[in-house]
Parts: sequence; structure tokens; C-alpha cells
Amino acid sequence: MFKVLKTEGRARRGEFSCAHGGVVQTPVFMNVGTQGAIKGGVSAHDLKEVGCQIELSNTYHLHLRPGDHIVRQMGGLHKFMDWDGPILTDSGGFQVFSLASLRKIREEGVTFASHIDGHRIFMGPEESMQIQSNLGSDIAMAFDECVENPATYEYAKASCERTARWLERCKAEHDRLNALPDTVNPGQMLFGINQGATFADLRVWHMDQIAKIDCDGYAIGGLAVGEPAEVMYEIIDAVEPHMPKDKPRYLMGVGTPSNIIEGVARGVDFFDCVMPSRNGRHGKLFTWEGTVNILNEKYATDPRPISESCGCPACRHFSRAYIRHLFKADEVLALRLAVLHNLYFYNELAARIRRALDEGTFADFRARYSGNLEKRA
Amino acid sequence: MFKVLKTEGRARRGEFSCAHGGVVQTPVFMNVGTQGAIKGGVSAHDLKEVGCQIELSNTYHLHLRPGDHIVRQMGGLHKFMDWDGPILTDSGGFQVFSLASLRKIREEGVTFASHIDGHRIFMGPEESMQIQSNLGSDIAMAFDECVENPATYEYAKASCERTARWLERCKAEHDRLNALPDTVNPGQMLFGINQGATFADLRVWHMDQIAKIDCDGYAIGGLAVGEPAEVMYEIIDAVEPHMPKDKPRYLMGVGTPSNIIEGVARGVDFFDCVMPSRNGRHGKLFTWEGTVNILNEKYATDPRPISESCGCPACRHFSRAYIRHLFKADEVLALRLAVLHNLYFYNELAARIRRALDEGTFADFRARYSGNLEKRA
Ligand SMILES: [Zn+2]
Ligand SMILES: [Zn+2]
Repeated sequence: MFKVLKTEGRARRGEFSCAHGGVVQTPVFMNVGTQGAIKGGVSAHDLKEVGCQIELSNTYHLHLRPGDHIVRQMGGLHKFMDWDGPILTDSGGFQVFSLASLRKIREEGVTFASHIDGHRIFMGPEESMQIQSNLGSDIAMAFDECVENPATYEYAKASCERTARWLERCKAEHDRLNALPDTVNPGQMLFGINQGATFADLRVWHMDQIAKIDCDGYAIGGLAVGEPAEVMYEIIDAVEPHMPKDKPRYLMGVGTPSNIIEGVARGVDFFDCVMPSRNGRHGKLFTWEGTVNILNEKYATDPRPISESCGCPACRHFSRAYIRHLFKADEVLALRLAVLHNLYFYNELAARIRRALDEGTFADFRARYSGNLEKRA
Repeated sequence: MFKVLKTEGRARRGEFSCAHGGVVQTPVFMNVGTQGAIKGGVSAHDLKEVGCQIELSNTYHLHLRPGDHIVRQMGGLHKFMDWDGPILTDSGGFQVFSLASLRKIREEGVTFASHIDGHRIFMGPEESMQIQSNLGSDIAMAFDECVENPATYEYAKASCERTARWLERCKAEHDRLNALPDTVNPGQMLFGINQGATFADLRVWHMDQIAKIDCDGYAIGGLAVGEPAEVMYEIIDAVEPHMPKDKPRYLMGVGTPSNIIEGVARGVDFFDCVMPSRNGRHGKLFTWEGTVNILNEKYATDPRPISESCGCPACRHFSRAYIRHLFKADEVLALRLAVLHNLYFYNELAARIRRALDEGTFADFRARYSGNLEKRA
């Protein structure tokens, strides 16, 4: 269920609900727990502390390890990782096309080698739906091909035509699985994914095709894979008018704080990115005053928290000096505190965007922060 | 302040208080946070959750990184790591003699090379006291030499004579530092350390010598360094009658659950060991039913917590299957949950020992558990 409460320009303030958790306030940033845990020693319980609304896990990774049949046997991913809020699972497509090797793509699906032990795996639309059904997530993503950037027009066209055909198969299999008497989460939703590389006409054609298939939401995939941000924004601008107005829109794998603000300004509701946890693990911290590289010598005796305006578990208790020491001393606690802070910042970013939309001041917010939050504090 | 409340045989049930925190109930197991953080992503706040009464940090490590002057500048170790309970710091002696290289021992002290960058450092009794004063711990440990095991009688004799002379210098410097107007923790206590390798006559001679110097407690050091447990118990049996009855006794770096039970039975009040965190990080978990190697295949679909009788943050929420998955998937959260569980177990072990002493049933407790907690569940 998705409801647009308010708009400002193309930006949308909405509410979304699914089989688990209460009402999700959008725009929302989803927090990535790839293998059913957040990298840096952060648990599902910690996610509550940092204001996470939706957790995102990866189909490819969980299929390989521990195996989706084991997760199903343990009662599904919610029970396995002890998270009672909404979970979105990606389709596995992105990892198949970025992590796995020896790929062979046919109409049926993709054969590839596991990046862990090299064993051959086949995944097509039906397999992706079956795995996600076993995981029992609230939102399943359609199985798609993420073409490499840059891609030729011919390849991108053939690929997005196939991805459109795959969505029909996803939808049919998803409906079948949801209706099974012993399905883990019969209320699982399905989001379609728009592809078409950086070719606006392919993107629009593909969006028009998938909009005909009744999905619970629509994502824009295959962006933020190396193209300039301006190209990404142009593609969103081209596709957005063709996305159903009454369904949530999800910009996959995006991005920097500015990318998120610009995405919202272009009508996007859902975001996810590994940036807050990955950057955090390298000591790169986000604040409202700009980024902080905590490894910098100047923080060695700095008694202030990472950010004085932050209410995260790290900033409530620990100084920059202490967190810098933990990084220098190779203490795992450094990763945990940095990731908690960065996730809190991203969730707070989405919360402030929502507040600005509520108050009709999003244009001011955008003017003040877009392009500025990645600068050094 | 130390008070023996009750005894059963040589075992003592006591209370201890120092400059920080409330009353410590003894026997007590101290939780090791070597570099001002507990390995495995565990913070001082988490220590409260697992029932820790005293945190222990390492003088050698903190002197090297971030430097005790930085910790002092940040207000001392309590403020730096945000722990308001008691802190004990070791003297640096053990690490100087186990981690550092190119050691040269003279009457003045020891010159050695940092294990991090090889730079030459001099540490003697005065330097150790100065560093610990800068850290502002509640209990400072005297600077001692830990001789290698096995050691010749001649070397052990000369060494423990020198360690006795060093204690006099430690005491004088400690008194001087505590009286300075800007000292971090003027209520810092000093514990002397008994040495003498595995030679009972040297141990007794040394204990008689250091008992003449008025310390706030006395430790037995240089055990659990490779000798059989029986030899360790014989040394404690020999030394204990010579330890002041009205002061706490601390068996350094010990040990397995059985070692702790046997130490208590021989009149020891304080313990510390890296075993719970180190074993935890390797998936070896302690339970009242014996040890669990969580990496074992048989736990892959086990929905039970690590231990059904455990109230730790890991057992309250997560299954063996999930924790095993986290280990197999190299998720840092695995380390955190395992360490939280093992520390909780060790603190609970001390609590159950105290309860048995309160109820006069320690002999039964010892008969039931000593020698059994290290067996596989
Ligand atoms: Zn923060
Ligand atoms: Zn436990």
C-alpha cells in the first residue's frame, strides 16, 4: 500500500505499508544488510537505534550462503536475523552481473560461477522469485539484467527487451508462489525494474512496457554504475513521467547525500546504498557540516563527537579522539561506531527531507544541502 | 577498600571498592579491553549489558597507541572509553616480556623495541607508574619481570629479587604521583605482583618481601604461561598462606572456567583472561553444558540460542544457525555476538561462584563444575 500525502514540484511525501512493521514514511533510505547482517558488527536491533525503516538484503549472497532453503527452514529472513520491520530483497541480478564470473546469458536465465567456490549456478526469473519467496521478504525485486556501463545501443536494447519478458515470468511465478499454502510470506510484494542503460529512448520504452504489468512498485536499476551524476539525473527525468503515479519509485543503489536529494526532487521515494557503511568502515563520516575523515591527525585530541548535532549511539558517547584511536589500533569497535553514525546520518537525511516536504520547504532544503554534504567539514 | 564477608575453606566472598563505580562483589572476573576497547566490536556500554564489574586495559598498548599523554589530555581512560566503573591497568611488564623484541634488562628498567614500529622505548618502575597515572586507572599494577617458562632457578631468583626492589620504587613513585595537584585519579590504588617462576621457595620468599610493602592488593603473576595447571595450583597453594588476609588477591591472566573455580578454592579474589573474547572470536563458546564450536555443521539449522539458560544479548535474540552463518559469511557481527556471550558467561560464572559462597555450597559447586565446563556440550 502506497499513498502520496503531499507533493512539492515532482518531489513526493508518502506513506507505504507492507506485511511487516508499521507505516513506512517516504522518501525512505533503506539500510543494507547484504548477508542478513549489516557490515561492521551491526545487528537488526542496532538498526532500530539508528532510525532504519526498511532493511535490504541480497538474494545472490543469501542463496549462496547460508542458502535460502536454510533461511526458509529457520522461518524466513525476518526470524533468522530477528528484524520485524519491512525487508526488501534484491533479485540477485546485480550481483550475478557484477560479482559472479563465467556468466552465460540465455532467454531462460543466467548460468554463472559462484564467487565463493566457483560452483555453477543457474538463475532465471523463476529461480530468483523462488529464492526471494524462501527468504520471505516483504518486497521482492524482479530479475533483471544490469548491462555493463558503457553498453552498445544494440546490446542494451536486446537486454532490456529480455528484461521486460523476464518481468512477465517473474510476475507469474511470484503470484504462484504467494498462493502456495506454505509460503513464508504470502503478502510479499513485487517491484519491477526499469533498465535501458543510459539511452533515454530505451529507458522510456522499457518503462512503458513494465508499467503494463501490475507491480507494487517500480525501480530504476542500472544507474550509479560509473556514469556522471548528470547523466543519471537526465535518465530519471526522462523515465519519471512514465512511472505510475500511485506506486512507489525506487532508485537502486543510490547514492551520495546529494544524489538522494536530487532523486527526491525528481520524484523518487525509495533509495538504498552501501555508501554509508562502506565509507564508515574506511573512517569517512557524514555530517551536516560536511564529511569528516576521522583518520586525520587533527582529530587525535578532539574531544567533540563526530558531529555535535548528531544523536546517534556513537555521538552520544564517544569522542573523535577515541574513534580515531580505535581505527588506528585496528579495533573492530571503530567499524561499528562509524557505521552506526553513517547509517543514522542517512536515515536522518531522509527524515529531514520528509520534514521539509511536510513544511513545503524542500526547495530551500535542496538549495542549501544538494552538492554540499560531500564537501569536507 | 576490601572486606571479606564470608569464607568457605580458603575461598573468600568479599566486597571491594575503589575511586570509580559502586561496590565490586568478589570473587570477580575482570573483562579485558586491551587498547581501551573490547576486541570484537564491544564497547564500554556493552560491558554493562554483560555484567562486567571491572574493566582491564593494557599499559603497554595504550602507551604505544594512542599514547598515555593523549589519554590524559582527554581526561583519563574512564572518560576516553566512556566507562564509569573501576579500571585496572596492568604494568606493561607482561607485554614488554612477551610482545616486544630486542629487550635489554638492567636494574633501572627495560629497553625494548615497539612491536608496532620498532622504535626504542625505556620502561622502568617509575615510567610504568607515570603511564598508569596518566591513564587514571583505579588499580595500577606494579612493574615486574615475567620470566620465561621454563626458567633456571638462578635467573628466576635474581629476577624476583629485582622485581622486589622494583616494587619499592613503584610504591614511592605511585605515592608521589597520587599527591600531585593535577593527577588524573588521586585515589588510584597499587597492587604488588608476586613472581618466582615455578619455584615454590622463591615464590614464598618473594611474597614475604612484597607483603612488607603496603599495597592495596597482591597479585600472583607469571602463571598460566605454559606450565601444567597442577603446577599452577601448587604454586598458589604455597603462596596463599603468605598473602595478607585483609587485601584482595589477583591471579593474573587466568584462565579457563575450571582454573577460576580452582583459584577461588585456593583463596583468590580477582581474575582476568583474554580467553572468553579470544575463543569467542574463533567461534568457541562457553555454556553451562560445556563448550560449543558454533562452526560445526550440526548447528547450521539449529534454532536454539547458544545456550538456553543464558540471558546474554546474543542468546536473547539470535539462533545458533544465524550466528554460525555470520561466522561462515565473515560478518563482524559474528565476533561481537560471540564475545558478548562469552563475557556474559564468565561474569555469570563469577556470580554463581559468589552465590555458592553466600549459600555455603561452594564445595558442591566446585565438585559439579570444576573440570567439566571445558568439555564439549
Ligand atoms: Zn553520530
Ligand atoms: Zn549467551
